[in-house]
Amino acid sequence: MSDFVLDDRLTRDSELIMPLGLCQLRLLKDSRWPWLMLVPQRKGMSEIFDLAPLDQALLTFETNTVAAALKKTTGATKINVAAIGNIVRQLHVHVVARFEGDPNWPGPIWGFGQAEAYDAARKRDFLNALAENLSS
Amino acid sequence: MSDFVLDDRLTRDSELIMPLGLCQLRLLKDSRWPWLMLVPQRKGMSEIFDLAPLDQALLTFETNTVAAALKKTTGATKINVAAIGNIVRQLHVHVVARFEGDPNWPGPIWGFGQAEAYDAARKRDFLNALAENLSS
Repeated sequence: MSDFVLDDRLTRDSELIMPLGLCQLRLLKDSRWPWLMLVPQRKGMSEIFDLAPLDQALLTFETNTVAAALKKTTGATKINVAAIGNIVRQLHVHVVARFEGDPNWPGPIWGFGQAEAYDAARKRDFLNALAENLSS
Repeated sequence: MSDFVLDDRLTRDSELIMPLGLCQLRLLKDSRWPWLMLVPQRKGMSEIFDLAPLDQALLTFETNTVAAALKKTTGATKINVAAIGNIVRQLHVHVVARFEGDPNWPGPIWGFGQAEAYDAARKRDFLNALAENLSS
């Protein structure tokens, strides 16, 4: 894990919320959707099946834990979970809360429009509620 | 599993390749991308975290096995794996082979353009090669 270095674009577009067992849990700097990202702290991984089997199981556990907490925190209509990586090849998994009528609903969020900055208080409240639901 | 009924739209838009342990493995009727779908044969599931823990592990195993076989079969630049479900709520996981320069590369495939039918021989060759890589 000491060799792990986060991709430059992922670093720029998101901020660390907390380390999980395998992954960094990060928040995208885009207030249009509650948009989280898990990045396994393993070097040279691009596809989920590149991970060792135990890491694949850990990634599943961490992703599903985060997705359930995001659903509980936001009351989302649907949680979108995706490992795409056509632009940034370092393995990362998106976990996004979607709502009927949100920007580009029911289409995908990736490549759509421009990011919008968070209001600081709104971001703090969201992250506090998420942390509570992750630990309960 | 006897109570499981495949959603009408998933039935219409895809065809069964083979049953796996948990999921139906299906092919989307769209030749623009080699596009597979796994549907856990469990009733009333919408989110991955709705599944029982053992089913979550099975889904991970089956998804990653299929994704690795699809990569080997196609030589894709990147495999996209996603559970979105904003339109069809029955839980289903997309596994798609992407190539630089393919329709909408590097953007997402969902909601993009119109499906194009397969040539029968091309589809047969693809499915034969996929089956071989799934069993090796």
